[in-house]
Amino acid sequence: MHAALAALPQVLARLDADRTGALERWFEVLRLPSISAQPEHAADCRAAAGWFRDRLAEIGFTAGLRETGGHPVVLAQHAGPAGATSGGVPHLLFYGHYDVQPAEPLERWTTAPFAPSLAEGPYGPRAIARGAVDDKGQVMTWLEAFRAWHQAGGGLPVRVTVLIEGEEETGSPNLDPFLAAHRGELAADLAVISDTNMWDVDTPAITTRLRGLVYAEITLRAAARDLHSGLYGGAARNPINALTQILGQLHDDDGRVGLPGFYDAVRALPEAVAAQWQGLGFDEAGFLGGAGLATAAGERGRPVLEQLWARPTADINGIWGGYTGPGAKTVIPAEAHAKLSFRLVPDQDPAAIEAALRRFVTERLPADTTAEIRILGASPGIAVSTDTGWARAAQAALVAEFGRPAVLAGSGGSIPVVESLRRLLGIDTLLMGFGLDDDQVHGPNEKFELRCFHHGARAHVRLLSGLAAAGKLRG
Amino acid sequence: MHAALAALPQVLARLDADRTGALERWFEVLRLPSISAQPEHAADCRAAAGWFRDRLAEIGFTAGLRETGGHPVVLAQHAGPAGATSGGVPHLLFYGHYDVQPAEPLERWTTAPFAPSLAEGPYGPRAIARGAVDDKGQVMTWLEAFRAWHQAGGGLPVRVTVLIEGEEETGSPNLDPFLAAHRGELAADLAVISDTNMWDVDTPAITTRLRGLVYAEITLRAAARDLHSGLYGGAARNPINALTQILGQLHDDDGRVGLPGFYDAVRALPEAVAAQWQGLGFDEAGFLGGAGLATAAGERGRPVLEQLWARPTADINGIWGGYTGPGAKTVIPAEAHAKLSFRLVPDQDPAAIEAALRRFVTERLPADTTAEIRILGASPGIAVSTDTGWARAAQAALVAEFGRPAVLAGSGGSIPVVESLRRLLGIDTLLMGFGLDDDQVHGPNEKFELRCFHHGARAHVRLLSGLAAAGKLRG
Repeated sequence: MHAALAALPQVLARLDADRTGALERWFEVLRLPSISAQPEHAADCRAAAGWFRDRLAEIGFTAGLRETGGHPVVLAQHAGPAGATSGGVPHLLFYGHYDVQPAEPLERWTTAPFAPSLAEGPYGPRAIARGAVDDKGQVMTWLEAFRAWHQAGGGLPVRVTVLIEGEEETGSPNLDPFLAAHRGELAADLAVISDTNMWDVDTPAITTRLRGLVYAEITLRAAARDLHSGLYGGAARNPINALTQILGQLHDDDGRVGLPGFYDAVRALPEAVAAQWQGLGFDEAGFLGGAGLATAAGERGRPVLEQLWARPTADINGIWGGYTGPGAKTVIPAEAHAKLSFRLVPDQDPAAIEAALRRFVTERLPADTTAEIRILGASPGIAVSTDTGWARAAQAALVAEFGRPAVLAGSGGSIPVVESLRRLLGIDTLLMGFGLDDDQVHGPNEKFELRCFHHGARAHVRLLSGLAAAGKLRG
Repeated sequence: MHAALAALPQVLARLDADRTGALERWFEVLRLPSISAQPEHAADCRAAAGWFRDRLAEIGFTAGLRETGGHPVVLAQHAGPAGATSGGVPHLLFYGHYDVQPAEPLERWTTAPFAPSLAEGPYGPRAIARGAVDDKGQVMTWLEAFRAWHQAGGGLPVRVTVLIEGEEETGSPNLDPFLAAHRGELAADLAVISDTNMWDVDTPAITTRLRGLVYAEITLRAAARDLHSGLYGGAARNPINALTQILGQLHDDDGRVGLPGFYDAVRALPEAVAAQWQGLGFDEAGFLGGAGLATAAGERGRPVLEQLWARPTADINGIWGGYTGPGAKTVIPAEAHAKLSFRLVPDQDPAAIEAALRRFVTERLPADTTAEIRILGASPGIAVSTDTGWARAAQAALVAEFGRPAVLAGSGGSIPVVESLRRLLGIDTLLMGFGLDDDQVHGPNEKFELRCFHHGARAHVRLLSGLAAAGKLRG
């Protein structure tokens, strides 16, 4: 029996025995408000990076912070078992991010976002905090798996490189240059990321399809200053009026996105895939009802899973302009703003979508109005193959842990690093995450089920064992 | 010669001699941030009310504060010359407001909005502050006229009631009940208001036409909480998308407002009036250019003066929803908001416009979306006759002061109290104001030309003299 298989029971037992310690460590890092988008939290981001570096150094990693143009990257190496460098032992790259989304709107949190707490839910206790699941909690699942291997398994059974960045929530502006500059240090057989969801609380999932993203901020400007709508109203251009006129045309009556050529590269869902998804018995009403909704709002006539996993979208994520305080102010403002994002499917080119957005806005600009469009993030959609040795090893680990196979799922979200890792380092990614759809990621009262957390850590322990036993990975 | 005519030269001389004192008093009240819309400034509003009460008490008025459901009202009475109560002496009601608009956006002020300062402009020195002109500065023109009559004219030559409210900028929610409850105390022959503009720096104006206003705040709600656009985008209703779709239809391609029946009660401008306005030689390019604009944005094919004075409008004055901080956040928010206002012309019924707005929004609401519409202000447009004795007296005072007749102008703004005074007290209003179109009322760097301020005070001195000499007013 391979040593990594022989050690498995005691490593899992160690994990089970240290659940309290794991919870304390997890809560410690949740207390750091590492909001990458808000400059006043730069020091908190660095503190979170340092915290992960120290935890990695404790369990046998050579770990350090690397500077970037923005928040630092945590980079750590573990040599694996003796002789690992001579081949035969798989080399995994674990990627995660220590930064979190802004916590606004603060008034809708029932507890302070950076004071993690436990609450009882239908599946037992859950942790509530910004970053509880995305991505600090998910990172902790594999970090605790490493710790258990370190303490009870004689060290990690595979070679591991860890990369934890601090700018995922702001579009990872410095990640690609970092990957390109550190190709040698980052060489690995396979990347592993836990930033996705399970199918449900009992059923794991491997995510094989991700949407891309183009995120833009638009500013319309008209008059040189704010105007009184009594003195100027009816003659002066109002940039909020113009913004609603332009963005109000983003969708047609059938819910299709109106950018020119938006669907040109979108391929129809293969019938086999459509049938497989149909077979999942997805509860559309339950999914929507969980968010207080009753009607699928996307492209008319398509199942919700297809809308989420296989169709591109446009959403206005923020809008502001003029007077937004209490009471009435009759101003015609000088400018108006919106943030909007497009979720993309594989084969759509982010640069083409950006160009289409610019044309769409420019063609609709009224007189005396200028538009500034800033792109805050751009990544293509991606599909990963599941017909590989490592995918089978992951499936085996999940079957062993959950007693049922993982769903091969799509995801409506974007993990641009998956595309970057393939393009810049030539490696594929195993997306094996333990969140649930109702975790309220990016919203108030974000949570992570302790049950999912613990299963996740155990699944990572099993994955390392299985990959170590399988030996060097080749596709 | 009537005593009030005989006293005129010395009263005007007194005014001329005390310009420094007048400026000091004016700046004193400009330092009080009496922003009625912002609850944290309630004490500042009360302080401004008390300041005006004290100044009135100094110059022979019986003055006090009266409580309302909101900010207090300053109410003051001056008996006029001996024997005034026995008839024959006109009784004027001067109305003004001590509250000001919010100062936001603060970053666009070159000096602090509540630290009044002088700056040199093309017409000499100007005062810069929130409320410099609207309406504290304009109120000070008649208050200084009263002071000069008190100090150099043996007291006021007419009976005067003063009413200064503190909620004009929030739609005067408590004014109508106050007027109705104090009909006896407020009885007068004519109301005088200085809250309008001159035609230009050399040419006075009497405003004979005002637009009304319906001001609404709309909140659209969809999901029960904020959602992640990766997990839900393409299937979940986005209330910002819906808000832009609805409000983007407020105007058609010709700039006409799209509410059902919006123009039903709007009468075409009489040809004689159109001809008179044409004769004013209004500089459309100069007017728009002063605001950094080049193209009239209103109803296609109508002159700018008609767009401003005789046509109703719709403007979005504020919009907000989702994430509006720095960077990217991929949220589908639970709600979105807008403030919007409709300028109305005479004969349009504010209640009908409100009903049309509710229908307009409701008919366009997508599934899973609710709309809450709150009306923050509603008043009809109004036209006042100029074929009256008091209008001739006002014209005479202005000719004497400026050496040229006043333009009988329209105004694009709304002074709802004019309609209230007519409806509740049965009295007409003389609108004689001394602002200029470029005073940046409601915007950053609001200003009032000292030259206009001083002419205005002198014109009010003359007006009192002329009305006193003309005797009891009857239409």
